[in-house]
Amino acid sequence: MPNTLEIIRKKRDALELSAEEISYFIKGYLSEEIADYQMSALLMAIFLQGFSDTETQALTEEMLFSGEVLDFSYLSQAKVDKHSTGGVGDKTSLVIAPIVAAAGLCVPMISGRALGHTGGTLDKLESIPGFKTNIALKEFKQIIEKIGAAIIGQTDEIAPADRKIYSLRDVTATVDSIPLITASVMSKKLAEGLDGLLLDVKCGNGAFMRTIEDARRLAQVMVNVGKQMKKRTTAFITAMDQPLGWSVGNSLEVIEAIETLKGLGGEDFRLLCLELAAKMLHLGKTSLDIDDCRKQVHSLISSGAALEKFEQMIIAQGGNANVINDFSLLPQAKNSAEVLATKSGYVTSIDTLAIGHATMHLGAGRRRLDSEIDMAVGLRIIAKIGDYVTEGQNLCTIYYNDESFLATTQKRIEKAYKIGEEKIVTSGLVKEIIE
Amino acid sequence: MPNTLEIIRKKRDALELSAEEISYFIKGYLSEEIADYQMSALLMAIFLQGFSDTETQALTEEMLFSGEVLDFSYLSQAKVDKHSTGGVGDKTSLVIAPIVAAAGLCVPMISGRALGHTGGTLDKLESIPGFKTNIALKEFKQIIEKIGAAIIGQTDEIAPADRKIYSLRDVTATVDSIPLITASVMSKKLAEGLDGLLLDVKCGNGAFMRTIEDARRLAQVMVNVGKQMKKRTTAFITAMDQPLGWSVGNSLEVIEAIETLKGLGGEDFRLLCLELAAKMLHLGKTSLDIDDCRKQVHSLISSGAALEKFEQMIIAQGGNANVINDFSLLPQAKNSAEVLATKSGYVTSIDTLAIGHATMHLGAGRRRLDSEIDMAVGLRIIAKIGDYVTEGQNLCTIYYNDESFLATTQKRIEKAYKIGEEKIVTSGLVKEIIE
Repeated sequence: MPNTLEIIRKKRDALELSAEEISYFIKGYLSEEIADYQMSALLMAIFLQGFSDTETQALTEEMLFSGEVLDFSYLSQAKVDKHSTGGVGDKTSLVIAPIVAAAGLCVPMISGRALGHTGGTLDKLESIPGFKTNIALKEFKQIIEKIGAAIIGQTDEIAPADRKIYSLRDVTATVDSIPLITASVMSKKLAEGLDGLLLDVKCGNGAFMRTIEDARRLAQVMVNVGKQMKKRTTAFITAMDQPLGWSVGNSLEVIEAIETLKGLGGEDFRLLCLELAAKMLHLGKTSLDIDDCRKQVHSLISSGAALEKFEQMIIAQGGNANVINDFSLLPQAKNSAEVLATKSGYVTSIDTLAIGHATMHLGAGRRRLDSEIDMAVGLRIIAKIGDYVTEGQNLCTIYYNDESFLATTQKRIEKAYKIGEEKIVTSGLVKEIIE
Repeated sequence: MPNTLEIIRKKRDALELSAEEISYFIKGYLSEEIADYQMSALLMAIFLQGFSDTETQALTEEMLFSGEVLDFSYLSQAKVDKHSTGGVGDKTSLVIAPIVAAAGLCVPMISGRALGHTGGTLDKLESIPGFKTNIALKEFKQIIEKIGAAIIGQTDEIAPADRKIYSLRDVTATVDSIPLITASVMSKKLAEGLDGLLLDVKCGNGAFMRTIEDARRLAQVMVNVGKQMKKRTTAFITAMDQPLGWSVGNSLEVIEAIETLKGLGGEDFRLLCLELAAKMLHLGKTSLDIDDCRKQVHSLISSGAALEKFEQMIIAQGGNANVINDFSLLPQAKNSAEVLATKSGYVTSIDTLAIGHATMHLGAGRRRLDSEIDMAVGLRIIAKIGDYVTEGQNLCTIYYNDESFLATTQKRIEKAYKIGEEKIVTSGLVKEIIE
């Protein structure tokens, strides 16, 4: 019979916990026999002493089976999803879910909210008037059956252990731990009843993983867990050293997502969406080769099929689909202001974390899980890394409602841009593929 | 302005906390703005990443000044105390407090209770009929003024931060940390308004510090903190690789303490008491040389003055002082049984932790802070390390009330004794002195 104190002590002393001990602890925590303060001591011990792949696997399974696991096996289509570890301007899900569903696959996406410097898919979607993300699992399944894709928030039934533990990690400085991130992400994603999962592990100064080594470790652990659970799992490590595309902020990102589905949008963002969507197709339809998948993605955009699927998704989730052709239906900020280049030269780097924080402070994000969001505010990134700018030129337009934040935001963004002599040539966003 | 999460994160990342940050955290915890789960995350981070001497000093001071600090400066006598880190059969305080008070010094001792395999001075004293340890500080001071010594339990006014944090450490596997032990011990001891403090750091298989290196580290950190607080502080590192004296268990240990004050008692225990008492005298009367202190201790015992002081202490704290001449007034176990040597040879080692646990399971100790104690039960240790025993000879007498524990206890004790060919010669109990 495992013992709470003994388990904390073992991990504290860097010993490996058995699956039985991990199960005992998680079940005890959910049933409130194990207190918050005991869980937080264990979390800190895990953070500092690490968790083996076997332990991470056991934790993920325990968290997964703490709640309902969806079963879409009665649908003949392959079920696939993508998860991003979070960045600035990352509205990828809004584009690739409709593309992949338009290709005939199912994308039962359970997604998250903005926190800290990162945006959240649910918040972005909710900037579409009427769009609901708080949808019960039964209705979620009906939408998936009908149109192939839906994006909803975590419900009470899905991985309750993860929700309880995540809240605690958030207030005990135990968030940035590879095994804990893995168990949290994978327990939710595996609850979707998938055949294949694509992980987009962001890496760079706007990501939780700042170095390629950390990103690689996280990607590898997540891929291992996915494979252990018999799911086709691939991780892309993608660059997050500048905001993705031109938009940062909720309604602005919806606009860019729609533009991308129309074949427009920021070039870096558009190319990343095409690559991710092609890989998702490939995970679902293993008989295809990846180049065929790319071609199919291209044609689903050029034919308008992907945009049409997004329209269906908006309607199915109660939103006003007219936003697709009339962006003025989306929340719009009252004012805008520019951030001007202080000298001429090439943009050599952008402090993406600072950009994310600046946008959060404008009201687009959340400092804490319970903060309110202003859907209309955000940034239009004009100058990106490698661009030549002349002194006085606009680097970035700020859309804002509250005048009092403007000066600070302008200063932060100005400071985030480094302008120098050297022209940096950026390569594609996909740095590595781990599968 | 310090920030709770930022402080946890700093320690997690092995950075040094400032005195201001430590103060903010402790004050916030006492005022309940900082939650138990945040304190336990910090405690685990301290356990694993360590605390510098400066941090330990700051923590000790913060915990000390979280409550009342006694002031005996109006008394002309020197105020001294001794603290032991805990062992098996360690009833030293019962002997040395009266000796040192009989020498004209003050011993305002605030002591603790049994926990785990270790006994507690308060529990032992409470086996004397009527003896009260739950005494308010005002009365405590009056007894000290009148007779020079008293031994009471921690009151609500003394180091409340320590009490709250200790309870949390106890249930989060963060007890055995040198900086946390130091801050806990020193914050309570320094609240006694002392001039000098003698630390008895136990070392061996019955102590929290099993190796001489760990014992040295703990002793050094505690001595450093004491000196920083301008108190004469010395640490003895003493052997705890077999039970101290012949008795383990509450009323049995009171009997041995009284015997020792009469010049009898287990030899190893008696000699340790003499050394500790002499050093306490020396800390209080720095003009004396240590050999004079030893002589004074001897004469206080042979004259009966020390025993008389113990009698006064018992009376002052409401106890029946007739126990001194009539041990039958103390709680007595209904039954006794022997543990027989399974072969002939020398006792080469005794698993003292196992002896401590066996006694606890008999009912003499506490598994948890809220367990009940049976004052009567315990052990009489007959064979000690280096003794020659013949097969079938009694190694240890068990005094018990509950038959159902007997067989297990016998087996545990039998197993704790190692009998071999080699005669181990034990030297004095004091292994090192750190000052």
